[in-house]
Amino acid sequence: MILSKQEMLNESYSFETEQALNYEIEKQVMQLFASSSQVTSIEEQIDRITDNFCQSFLSTINANTDINLDLLLKNFSESQIPVQPASLENYLKHLGNNVVAHSIHTSSPRFIGHMTSALPYFVRPLAKLMTAMNQNAVKIETAKALSFCEREALAMLHRLIYNFSDSFYAQHIQNNLSTLGILVSGGTVANITAVWCARNNALGPIDEFLGVEKEGLAAALDFYGYKGAVIIGSELMHFSFDKAADLMGIGTHRLIRIPTDGNNRVNIQALRQAVAQCRAQNLLIIGIVGVAGTTDSGGVDSLAEIADIAQEAHTHFHVDAAWGGPLIFSQQHRHKLAGIERADSVTIDGHKQLYLPMGIGMVFFRDPHKAEAIEKQASYTMRKGSFDLGKRALEGSRPGMALFLHAGLNLIGLKGYEFLIDEGIRKTQYMASCICSMPEFELLGEPDTNLLLYRYIPKPLRELVAKKQLTETDNQLTNKFNESLQKIQRQIGRTFISRTTKTTSSFSKEIPIIALRAVIANPLTTEKDIDTVLKDQIEIAAEISISTFL
Amino acid sequence: MILSKQEMLNESYSFETEQALNYEIEKQVMQLFASSSQVTSIEEQIDRITDNFCQSFLSTINANTDINLDLLLKNFSESQIPVQPASLENYLKHLGNNVVAHSIHTSSPRFIGHMTSALPYFVRPLAKLMTAMNQNAVKIETAKALSFCEREALAMLHRLIYNFSDSFYAQHIQNNLSTLGILVSGGTVANITAVWCARNNALGPIDEFLGVEKEGLAAALDFYGYKGAVIIGSELMHFSFDKAADLMGIGTHRLIRIPTDGNNRVNIQALRQAVAQCRAQNLLIIGIVGVAGTTDSGGVDSLAEIADIAQEAHTHFHVDAAWGGPLIFSQQHRHKLAGIERADSVTIDGHKQLYLPMGIGMVFFRDPHKAEAIEKQASYTMRKGSFDLGKRALEGSRPGMALFLHAGLNLIGLKGYEFLIDEGIRKTQYMASCICSMPEFELLGEPDTNLLLYRYIPKPLRELVAKKQLTETDNQLTNKFNESLQKIQRQIGRTFISRTTKTTSSFSKEIPIIALRAVIANPLTTEKDIDTVLKDQIEIAAEISISTFL
Repeated sequence: MILSKQEMLNESYSFETEQALNYEIEKQVMQLFASSSQVTSIEEQIDRITDNFCQSFLSTINANTDINLDLLLKNFSESQIPVQPASLENYLKHLGNNVVAHSIHTSSPRFIGHMTSALPYFVRPLAKLMTAMNQNAVKIETAKALSFCEREALAMLHRLIYNFSDSFYAQHIQNNLSTLGILVSGGTVANITAVWCARNNALGPIDEFLGVEKEGLAAALDFYGYKGAVIIGSELMHFSFDKAADLMGIGTHRLIRIPTDGNNRVNIQALRQAVAQCRAQNLLIIGIVGVAGTTDSGGVDSLAEIADIAQEAHTHFHVDAAWGGPLIFSQQHRHKLAGIERADSVTIDGHKQLYLPMGIGMVFFRDPHKAEAIEKQASYTMRKGSFDLGKRALEGSRPGMALFLHAGLNLIGLKGYEFLIDEGIRKTQYMASCICSMPEFELLGEPDTNLLLYRYIPKPLRELVAKKQLTETDNQLTNKFNESLQKIQRQIGRTFISRTTKTTSSFSKEIPIIALRAVIANPLTTEKDIDTVLKDQIEIAAEISISTFL
Repeated sequence: MILSKQEMLNESYSFETEQALNYEIEKQVMQLFASSSQVTSIEEQIDRITDNFCQSFLSTINANTDINLDLLLKNFSESQIPVQPASLENYLKHLGNNVVAHSIHTSSPRFIGHMTSALPYFVRPLAKLMTAMNQNAVKIETAKALSFCEREALAMLHRLIYNFSDSFYAQHIQNNLSTLGILVSGGTVANITAVWCARNNALGPIDEFLGVEKEGLAAALDFYGYKGAVIIGSELMHFSFDKAADLMGIGTHRLIRIPTDGNNRVNIQALRQAVAQCRAQNLLIIGIVGVAGTTDSGGVDSLAEIADIAQEAHTHFHVDAAWGGPLIFSQQHRHKLAGIERADSVTIDGHKQLYLPMGIGMVFFRDPHKAEAIEKQASYTMRKGSFDLGKRALEGSRPGMALFLHAGLNLIGLKGYEFLIDEGIRKTQYMASCICSMPEFELLGEPDTNLLLYRYIPKPLRELVAKKQLTETDNQLTNKFNESLQKIQRQIGRTFISRTTKTTSSFSKEIPIIALRAVIANPLTTEKDIDTVLKDQIEIAAEISISTFL
């Protein structure tokens, strides 16, 4: 018996009615929580509906629907929680029509503009299992076997990066005093955690001073006699370092962004100078960041040279390999990461090129005791000497994402990941060669990995581009054209490419170039899909009148 | 054709063999990524196996297996990623035997020691759907409909807390310049985000000074003329505030923990004094924290009185309602949260008393523009004026957990959550009355909500306890006894209760009391289960010789 609001407001509404209503609610809610065996038929019904959602979602080739954002958001304007539990059938219908239908087909072979991809199918049943088990990885009392499983998976990747001896891993893999890596929600938290460890180790307790952790940053800089603290890296460093610099009280103006060369790699000479300047100015260099796969263009810094600089400066060397880390699986491409094994800390994202679901970031430490500097305890749990993973972590309660990571490493394996990495780069090179051979496009730099920047050149300007005679005004016009092209392509939704802004100094001043940005990681993307995406852009461009931008 | 390592090392291994091997890998990997329709039979097979895991896991009554941790961790000592992809069948067998079998039955009605519970069954198919859709909630280009769905769900909870007008919600719910709340990975990140917003707003840009965000904490304190910055709250504040104080450069010694009264609520008089002292000492009070449901004992601070103090001091008032927030659903118990509507920010965890899977923290803001102070942009995405949720967030890429939140609010509804909250508290009161009537136990304070602290009293000491004549030595012995009892109970695994340390000043000095800690939130937990847990403890205690601790 479900009463309408009107009935509830009706004068005939009585205490008995309320009792009956409460009993009905109790029955409905308890049914939601009943153990599997009791609700099999309802659960099977939902399974069937959501499986249909999954199947139709995963088999759609288009990148997206063409619904207008302004129209879409009108479907989500309810600010009141329903009084009564909604009917499952109606709710699932609503979900299907409004959410699932207009979500982005991140697995589409023609959605090649962001760092998302089709995922191996085993992640879907595992997601259900993870949620059924609902372990809380913060402590051993809520995640027993999974804590050790997580440590094992992290050790495997640690070994891939640092390749220490058997005895090293035997000693540390399940040692509760050692931290080979920390599983976090994403690359941002991984990078922040690395900077946090670096800062706390650089400004640790000494003599009567209790360290930055307890006394704060101002007191620590004062005690150690620094005029300030900085983080140094490439201008293409991820914006999570801006967050880190802000959050940690360093200040984003103390995040020193060094120019890159034509290949989107940090200029080593300029980096060396910046380090020298900071030291001369008595600024603490908390860490130097090397980027292995910039978010913008996939460029990989010369890590070995940065390692030299960091070593000379006695500072923490962090490598943000959130995107590019898995190049290490490839015999053909891992040389690009040479020097990563000298990093004090390394970030890798599982939800990027390990082909796992969203929500898996990792930070690895060369020194298994580095993370001691951020250790915290709490009396109800997180006890010293325990296996509680939450002792050394920015986050507290967190899901058992290790289940995916462990499965991925085992079910795809070294050779499987190597194949995936090699294929992505091979197809990116294919796309680059297509673009070079097509008069409609200009390639903006040779790809280092599997990200590609290019742009469409409106017909009247093609000759000028070929002769490298594009004026600044022409460039502005081309920018507007490409921005418009990307927006229309996204709106139509057949295919998808993202866009970014690349600065270039070709006119003896810094000018912005709006670039189309392809990310080729989806194993389902074929050369034919790439052709289709480029053809789609040419067709859309043909409909855009250049005069609009004049 | 899968070659063994030995075969690969064999001299007969040739280029042709390698080619064949690579082809085999390619076939295996591509099969993992094939779209649903193509792999139906394999996917159905895995579904069946993992569904069996789920069903047997969810129907187990025991809290855990009795495997020894030292033995268990030996199963996870492999530091090498397998070269070849593992066979699915073998891997799932390994997973079942080693991980699933020895995970904690967080849904067991007799696992009543931590803030985990059985979950409504709809979260399991939704987990699969979420993973299939694999949206990245950081930006609209990878999470279209879901971004609006998330905003809607957050607005619903915002309204429950703040209850502003229809027109307020119509204006802000889908306004990309407004932030009613931020969905994060957990309560810790929610609390850190709140402190971050508070700090950046307190030390914002003014005249030529660019604000703490850009210039850093030391410069900001200097510019504003403060001698330091503090956060003030109850001694029972969650340890995420230690993390916040450390991470943000404030220093954990500047986290001022005010004593609580007998009911685990912050002492208002002492809080008022601390605020006055900080102001007299020219320390910036970044925020005052009220706790709505301490992790230790479930106590709820007197939020209205704290709101008065914060208002007088013109400082940010944050309420950590990670645990206790959902009391607001209950007509009977929401009065305990009176004053929460005056908070500048509120943390609530979805994975606690909203009965959703791990990984759902939320922070809400009274002022929809408060989070502007942490806004960041990046050229490849996160554009100003866009609907990108990642603009104002600590985290970057993150999964579409909003799917669970939205479903929970709709499928359980106001009345459903009210029932769940009322039931948890009712059963806690039942347990408290059992404990009071049993000579074996001592209740340590009346429960405010649905957490309960108590302890076992060894027989020779019961009379002394009744007469309140327990000496400090007796207390130490009782502590050791209870620690041992909790460890043995956990090890046997039939039932589970956690433990914590409560300090008391009963001997005119601070002495620690080791307490058993029950958390009664699981709707499947019956009064009979509670009886069973207490009986289990009595049986275990009977086997513990008190002389061991003398």
